[in-house]
Amino acid sequence: MEVQIAVAKVNKYAVSESGDTLEVVERPNGGLSVVLADGQSSGRGAKAISQMVVRKVIGLLAEGVRDGATARAASDALFTDKQGKVISTLNIASLDLSSGTIVLTRNNPAPMYICRGEQIDLVGEESIPLGTSRNVRPLITEIAIEPGLTIIIYTDGLVHAGKRRGIPMDVGATLSSILDDQDPSPQTLADALLAQAVSLDENRPADDISVLVLKVAARTGDNVRRMTVRLPIDGISR
Amino acid sequence: MEVQIAVAKVNKYAVSESGDTLEVVERPNGGLSVVLADGQSSGRGAKAISQMVVRKVIGLLAEGVRDGATARAASDALFTDKQGKVISTLNIASLDLSSGTIVLTRNNPAPMYICRGEQIDLVGEESIPLGTSRNVRPLITEIAIEPGLTIIIYTDGLVHAGKRRGIPMDVGATLSSILDDQDPSPQTLADALLAQAVSLDENRPADDISVLVLKVAARTGDNVRRMTVRLPIDGISR
Repeated sequence: MEVQIAVAKVNKYAVSESGDTLEVVERPNGGLSVVLADGQSSGRGAKAISQMVVRKVIGLLAEGVRDGATARAASDALFTDKQGKVISTLNIASLDLSSGTIVLTRNNPAPMYICRGEQIDLVGEESIPLGTSRNVRPLITEIAIEPGLTIIIYTDGLVHAGKRRGIPMDVGATLSSILDDQDPSPQTLADALLAQAVSLDENRPADDISVLVLKVAARTGDNVRRMTVRLPIDGISR
Repeated sequence: MEVQIAVAKVNKYAVSESGDTLEVVERPNGGLSVVLADGQSSGRGAKAISQMVVRKVIGLLAEGVRDGATARAASDALFTDKQGKVISTLNIASLDLSSGTIVLTRNNPAPMYICRGEQIDLVGEESIPLGTSRNVRPLITEIAIEPGLTIIIYTDGLVHAGKRRGIPMDVGATLSSILDDQDPSPQTLADALLAQAVSLDENRPADDISVLVLKVAARTGDNVRRMTVRLPIDGISR
């Protein structure tokens, strides 16, 4: 088998810094975790919050702390620092090779999707962001690693796309139409969801948007680990 | 402009864990850093060392500490912990948007290459791994971010490929022949270098090998940040 991960991310229109932070960390007992946080509001303040949350979470994951405990710790730290005045969403998608499972941790009102072939399941139980109170609990979903599995996670910028114009994004319908194509790659899926959202916002995203797709496939190639990053730069602030 | 980063990584033959650790972290003042460490020996012990080094470095980078200082701090921490008995190489490639430069930090006997178009420069001054003594200094190379720039960094597995059979890898020659092709993508470059090394080792790499390529290109597309990861899984150790 192989696991393929793709991320597509844009900033809110005319804002140079995204309030969303996404990082990938290796797990000390095998596998990796993708951590995505969306800090309240936008721009530099939101970035500082989401970076603080992601930093806390990946530091603890690297020490072998379990995913749910890292989310609680990040929430407590944020609440202690900001007294509930600033909140942040958090999603962790972990490929845990020691248990043979994918562990999905969510503190985010935005739902996520778990797809097996063309079957699409919405995971949308009520979920509360970090930093809202002293006792925030993450929702944990654990599923076996098996070929054909696709997981779609996103920040609320995707959900809110188009609302300004009264034609809100239907993530499920968009997803379904993309999955109708022959076995789309994770990057194709992430790009298509993001493109639809940006188009509904008339190319001026009303919020930061991040889309994360994780797919388990039958092994198609060699045993090389690969990573690519593409980072557009708009002028350098010297 | 846009910055494209590609990584290709294989484990030593018949060893399930790579002693090389590579992670990417966002810089608090804009841009990102790629951190690559190669812990002494191979397997689980080497992995723990390189993870410790990378963890230390990205934690400090995330706090805004400058690259050279993070390398010194990681070296001191490793020396204090292991009394010089265990060492690790370190490379940091940072895209620093606040200074408009790429900052390359090296504590690695393996050289690196800086290419501008078809001009290839070897950066190979003597450089000492972390943890060897109390006073390890990194070599720092700082260059302006400009289109046409390609930087190639790797762990010593690439240098040692083929030595077992007496036909050592010539990284410069391989690189030159790949760059003759029309504007290869960073992934093409990383894959081709790795493939040449693995082939010289008769498909049984004698060491962990990691290749990192960073390229600055004229902007070709949209303003979407993208990342992909591909992780082969060989059976799950349940």
